[in-house]
Amino acid sequence: MALLVILDGVGDIRARGKGTPLEEAKKPNLDGLVENGAVGLMSTLGRGLAPGSDTGHLAILGYDWKNEYPGRGPLEALGVGMELKEGDVAFRANFATVIKNQIVDRRAGRIETEEAKKIAKAVEKIKIDGVEILFKHSTEHRGAVVLRGKGLSAKIKDTDPHKIGELHACEPLEKTKEAKKTAEVVNKWTKKVMEILSQHEINKKRKLPANALLLRGAGMHKNVESFEKRFGMKGACIAGGALYKGVAKYIGMDVINVKGATGDRNTDLEAKRRAVENALKKYDFVFLHIKATDSFSHDGDFEGKKGFIEKIDSAIRFDFETDVIVVTGDHSTPWSLKRHSGHEVPIIFSGELVRKDDVKRFDEYSAMRGGIGHIKGKDIINMIKNYMGKNEVVGS
Amino acid sequence: MALLVILDGVGDIRARGKGTPLEEAKKPNLDGLVENGAVGLMSTLGRGLAPGSDTGHLAILGYDWKNEYPGRGPLEALGVGMELKEGDVAFRANFATVIKNQIVDRRAGRIETEEAKKIAKAVEKIKIDGVEILFKHSTEHRGAVVLRGKGLSAKIKDTDPHKIGELHACEPLEKTKEAKKTAEVVNKWTKKVMEILSQHEINKKRKLPANALLLRGAGMHKNVESFEKRFGMKGACIAGGALYKGVAKYIGMDVINVKGATGDRNTDLEAKRRAVENALKKYDFVFLHIKATDSFSHDGDFEGKKGFIEKIDSAIRFDFETDVIVVTGDHSTPWSLKRHSGHEVPIIFSGELVRKDDVKRFDEYSAMRGGIGHIKGKDIINMIKNYMGKNEVVGS
Repeated sequence: MALLVILDGVGDIRARGKGTPLEEAKKPNLDGLVENGAVGLMSTLGRGLAPGSDTGHLAILGYDWKNEYPGRGPLEALGVGMELKEGDVAFRANFATVIKNQIVDRRAGRIETEEAKKIAKAVEKIKIDGVEILFKHSTEHRGAVVLRGKGLSAKIKDTDPHKIGELHACEPLEKTKEAKKTAEVVNKWTKKVMEILSQHEINKKRKLPANALLLRGAGMHKNVESFEKRFGMKGACIAGGALYKGVAKYIGMDVINVKGATGDRNTDLEAKRRAVENALKKYDFVFLHIKATDSFSHDGDFEGKKGFIEKIDSAIRFDFETDVIVVTGDHSTPWSLKRHSGHEVPIIFSGELVRKDDVKRFDEYSAMRGGIGHIKGKDIINMIKNYMGKNEVVGS
Repeated sequence: MALLVILDGVGDIRARGKGTPLEEAKKPNLDGLVENGAVGLMSTLGRGLAPGSDTGHLAILGYDWKNEYPGRGPLEALGVGMELKEGDVAFRANFATVIKNQIVDRRAGRIETEEAKKIAKAVEKIKIDGVEILFKHSTEHRGAVVLRGKGLSAKIKDTDPHKIGELHACEPLEKTKEAKKTAEVVNKWTKKVMEILSQHEINKKRKLPANALLLRGAGMHKNVESFEKRFGMKGACIAGGALYKGVAKYIGMDVINVKGATGDRNTDLEAKRRAVENALKKYDFVFLHIKATDSFSHDGDFEGKKGFIEKIDSAIRFDFETDVIVVTGDHSTPWSLKRHSGHEVPIIFSGELVRKDDVKRFDEYSAMRGGIGHIKGKDIINMIKNYMGKNEVVGS
């Protein structure tokens, strides 16, 4: 069996007189893994490219991010538990407060999950011009929308302007009848949703009513070859965040839902560890995703990121009985930059068949001297298969 | 001039308390080459991929293993000295003993070369439904078969089940009339061959008669750009095994047949050295292949592999007068795994124009610290041309 651990946005750079969070954190278990393995630096999509969370994970899991990426919407929709068919157009959606066509709050006052769930029921399924439009709420103001029908296109503009201000109509981004039709359907649906939500009992009592749904990240779902078919391994995903579950579902992996795995800094790492232990009994390949390393960096919080790495180290322990354990990130998110960057990410390969190098620590600078050298995201699964002794000969 | 030496399957991993054969072998000449050059690690097809002998050599010699690989059959047929035309379908073939449609011995009792050669004459050329079917014997039970005619396909199943048991009919692997026709021709030919061989005088005396020919590795021959045209160098191949000669012929290199070069552990390495010396006087590029390092690994024989590396070191000496000498393998074959793996292979570049690094030894672990870093098989010829000072500027 193999375990791939992605510490989201873990890669960093030295800044303001500090070492990187990986350099400064006490993490005896991760460093121990390095002692029994080899390290290197990984460019998820290619040198200097800053990966998104979606493309980054697709590449790491062995998919062609240029040709097999359906857009963010379908991955989010799958991640919140919706089923998709080829040709469906999906979006990320969020409840907002719109007054006189002005977006007053993009998150409807960060509406609480329970209240949003009740409101969502009113707009779960609407049919417009023969197109079925499904909405599924996830947490707080968030959810996903799926358009199902003939002749749709994802080449349309977001209705979410990503800022306060006028609510714009959806517009086609190309001159095709599919894009035109889809934009029209979205506009009719947006209007209809606002009519329904404005009348909702709960909203009548809210200062910032959740009276609109804003859409972004349009993408058209397509069926891709399953991870099992492509790599001959039965895979499972353990993650908190919807996107990561969505990526796993997109490639046909089982998603193991873990109570307390929230995808944020309060996630139950112990519960995730136990879930990994169990999954390794049933699956050839387990993908564990931990999100908050990235979130601390987006907040520019060095101490938070460092402390969370220490928490991960002591909770996950990395002492699983497997053929190979790989630990890396999907990209670097330097805390001093507060955003994804194209800096390489350190990566550990640990296992019986790994040629050990003489590096002793897991961090960006030690990894420069690692025996693995520089690799790309797409190399990882093939290397894992090799270290599992499972790869087939190419040719004869 | 340049010399490329491929020690088949030389790459290895530490196992059972032992260093790798390259680490443990005394090989002053190879290590001396490193002192005057630089080392690195080479992934023949890509990280983690386990190359076959055929795809591996094509990649190393600068050919696209995804689009320019004709399948194993044509390379073997070329290697045993058959001439191929575009559209020919070729196979590896072996004499077997078949009794009442049961394969009793896949190698007809490992029939001796001389006896097999005599039997082979009876089935060298057969015509069925307008298709000419040629057989050429090579060594022991081995040979190659070529189908020549219009509308053939290589998308057909092996008749060699790779194990004892029922002799299966050849079946098309796709629903085309070409595949259907080719399978039919193969089946009629198989029957005809069995009729002829059963009546053969020699077989009447054999306990395990060589009364059938089993086919595998179907491939369709195509003409590819020659090595000389692609790289501007006149190349020659010195090898024992048929496949390696076949790869060289496929890309238009001259094959220098060396008496005593058998492709096995008894090969005459001194004779190969002399052949290299002579070839370097006439050719820009000499490709020397030595097989048995791989064979010892397939047998799980650590001592054998280590000892053979020492033999190579003292017989070949690696002190040729050339612009550049490159030594590597086509893939790793760890003796503890007994099969090809996707582990990187160490590679030496030695020559006047090579930037020397500070590594002193030729082995997998020292190569991690080498100045060449990690390269792919397809990089090798371009790097050789550069170290020869022969490469043209790309663009202007």
